[in-house]
Amino acid sequence: MPVTAKHIREVFQRYVDLVTAGDADAIAALYAPDATLEDAMGSPRHEGRDEIRAFYAASAGTVRLELEGRVRVVPGEGACAMTARPTGAEGVVIETLDVMTFDETGLITSMRAWWSPDTIRSE
Amino acid sequence: MPVTAKHIREVFQRYVDLVTAGDADAIAALYAPDATLEDAMGSPRHEGRDEIRAFYAASAGTVRLELEGRVRVVPGEGACAMTARPTGAEGVVIETLDVMTFDETGLITSMRAWWSPDTIRSE
Repeated sequence: MPVTAKHIREVFQRYVDLVTAGDADAIAALYAPDATLEDAMGSPRHEGRDEIRAFYAASAGTVRLELEGRVRVVPGEGACAMTARPTGAEGVVIETLDVMTFDETGLITSMRAWWSPDTIRSE
Repeated sequence: MPVTAKHIREVFQRYVDLVTAGDADAIAALYAPDATLEDAMGSPRHEGRDEIRAFYAASAGTVRLELEGRVRVVPGEGACAMTARPTGAEGVVIETLDVMTFDETGLITSMRAWWSPDTIRSE
């Protein structure tokens, strides 16, 4: 049975909260053991929970990450625009957009994030 | 040389304007001859400009499509949340999100749209 839309929305909210809080272990636990992560698009892909945990250990807690608009949910997948405000860089906004796929147990099997130098602006 | 971020943003705006206007020929001309289209995700994929034109001939002009937030551009690719308001169905909003890839001449090589019964709401 595919995972529910409610679960996918909750994981997206949990994800941005945990990235903001900087809890790499809890973020890694949202992912399936053999999950993949591409953040940003075009950068080397991280494979497996250990590599994914290491990625967040280095990056989580350095931005305030928030959902922008509602998560678009299709069976087994969610997509949502987000904004990331780096702590200590007043007025800088990185506009990103994440697509996550899920397995039947509700764990993330892949995440891809669309951001680049082009999506960084000041406010 | 990859297509510019400016071009990708212009195509996204042009796309929503043409879908709203219902101009299937002009929409199809934004696509490369061998492009693919998956709208919504999980539905049968349309391949090639003729199939793509037929898809829009049946669907364009039936909604007011607008960008929601800014297009997230990475090299050769753009992603953006959108809202579609069906004409003649006051108060209904379909929340969608499109990812488009581009070739070096600036034509769309693939489009995938994330929406489902779960992303339809009333306002």
